Amino acid sequence: MALAARGRGRTAPNPCVGCVIVADGRVVGRGWTQAGGRPHAEAMALAQAGVKARGATAYVTLEPCAHESPRGPACSDLLIAAGVARVVAALEDPDPRTAGRGFARLRDAGIRVETGVRAAEARRSMAGFLMRLARGRPHVTLKLATSLDGCIAMADGSSRWITGPQARAHAHLERSRHDSILVGRGTLEADAPRLDVRLAGLESRAPLRVLLSRTAPDADAGWHVIADPQDIAALPGDHLLVEGGAAVASTFLAADLVDRLLLYRAPILIGGGRHSIGDIGLGDLSSAHGRWSIVESRQLGSDRVEVYERERNEG
Amino acid sequence: MALAARGRGRTAPNPCVGCVIVADGRVVGRGWTQAGGRPHAEAMALAQAGVKARGATAYVTLEPCAHESPRGPACSDLLIAAGVARVVAALEDPDPRTAGRGFARLRDAGIRVETGVRAAEARRSMAGFLMRLARGRPHVTLKLATSLDGCIAMADGSSRWITGPQARAHAHLERSRHDSILVGRGTLEADAPRLDVRLAGLESRAPLRVLLSRTAPDADAGWHVIADPQDIAALPGDHLLVEGGAAVASTFLAADLVDRLLLYRAPILIGGGRHSIGDIGLGDLSSAHGRWSIVESRQLGSDRVEVYERERNEG
Repeated sequence: MALAARGRGRTAPNPCVGCVIVADGRVVGRGWTQAGGRPHAEAMALAQAGVKARGATAYVTLEPCAHESPRGPACSDLLIAAGVARVVAALEDPDPRTAGRGFARLRDAGIRVETGVRAAEARRSMAGFLMRLARGRPHVTLKLATSLDGCIAMADGSSRWITGPQARAHAHLERSRHDSILVGRGTLEADAPRLDVRLAGLESRAPLRVLLSRTAPDADAGWHVIADPQDIAALPGDHLLVEGGAAVASTFLAADLVDRLLLYRAPILIGGGRHSIGDIGLGDLSSAHGRWSIVESRQLGSDRVEVYERERNEG
Repeated sequence: MALAARGRGRTAPNPCVGCVIVADGRVVGRGWTQAGGRPHAEAMALAQAGVKARGATAYVTLEPCAHESPRGPACSDLLIAAGVARVVAALEDPDPRTAGRGFARLRDAGIRVETGVRAAEARRSMAGFLMRLARGRPHVTLKLATSLDGCIAMADGSSRWITGPQARAHAHLERSRHDSILVGRGTLEADAPRLDVRLAGLESRAPLRVLLSRTAPDADAGWHVIADPQDIAALPGDHLLVEGGAAVASTFLAADLVDRLLLYRAPILIGGGRHSIGDIGLGDLSSAHGRWSIVESRQLGSDRVEVYERERNEG
């Protein structure tokens, strides 16, 4: 999954998959889905392993594909041809072109197959791919950076800086793992955000910049403009990061289009400042419960980052 | 320190101290400052240990007192009389009646003395006593229970419930460790809070109920009324818990009278609700930094509790 994360945000419409090949207790091949979707993780790992793949175990975050394509052979065939003895996979591929056929083909060739290993983390690892298949839209992360009292700025709008350098670097790493980043018109006009990835070695990552606005911006400036949050379905890529401001956050939350909350919190109190979200159409307190569960909480310098996921009763 | 916490909120003007006596690797006596301040922790632990205290080690969170009082002998004399061989203490007593004299008396009697062990935690353990000596007022904890977006209630005022039963039980335990609990007039009128300790076995703990208000409440109802936050200096007891609402929180923060933030956060979003604090007189963002540091963060059911302490450049 750590390898898979390297491709995240650049593999659509393919899932970001990771693969490790282990022979005699040693890693002999490592692969992940490359930008644009090919080569697949297994193809890359097998190429690295060479003849050492014979009799080895392949660990992979998703069922190896069973469909050939003009862009390359099926990974299940590659694993068979390489003489792999065992495949350990986290998830069955929900893509109807594979959906169990990859596992079946491996087993028919005499390969031992184990599945369901660390499935929850794998689902998280390829949340975009799964959301696109399940709901026909990208997986949406809403990022908020606030004070302890939930402010994103002082009353006069000043917000530089609330969080410190480590939290801001973390936020740039998150950008690098998204295909698109969305802001609203107010943020565009107030902050003129570049929305680029300012991390050494990752400067080339350039997520699509999306503006939620009923009118096009004055300058071209390379913005992809959508008028309605539902229009995210047509965006390329499977991972969308919503960065602000409060009006956009509220719009997405009210439409129940947020799957993951990325909360950075600085150990400061602002008091009477601008709040992170406005009205989201909540009818009563009890209906606010049971929607979010925490999956990560840790310190970044003097700030904390917390990640919450939307509870949904579906695979 | 765990034993000391049992007395916290009821020992003023004495510090809440804990003492453990260990002989041959076994605990033979345990004591903590009793309600009202006597017996002291060492006296209780020595009484429990009896003759087993001879040659034993006494661990104590504060320097044993060197001053006799009509209410009992000095603890340093008790330790000498019991034949203790070694005393390990966290802090020197800043009370000018002891202030090193307890340690000196023990050493003069041939007892080995080690000091400064886990001093930072011990300072936290008796923060009220130390604040009273340093600034002549109680140590103040501000409690806030909010949603992830920093709301303490919906726009219509409804706030039952934001946090779950485990967080609420934790808040009642915190109440039991405070001498007084303060609310503002708005909270009194909206919620008619009982401010009691609703935990099995601790129902008898009844912190003083303090109301911040320029006018006395309509009913007597056992409220101690103060008109100005600075008036907390005259409150009995060394631990004050400020429970709300937002106006009171803002008043105390603006006066820099909050030493500890106790933040309960539920995994819900309210949006457009009532915010935890209003204007606190912050001039610019940079001056908000460097004031608070996190000392605890953990999960309570589906909620999180975080504790922050005010950074002060003083012992």
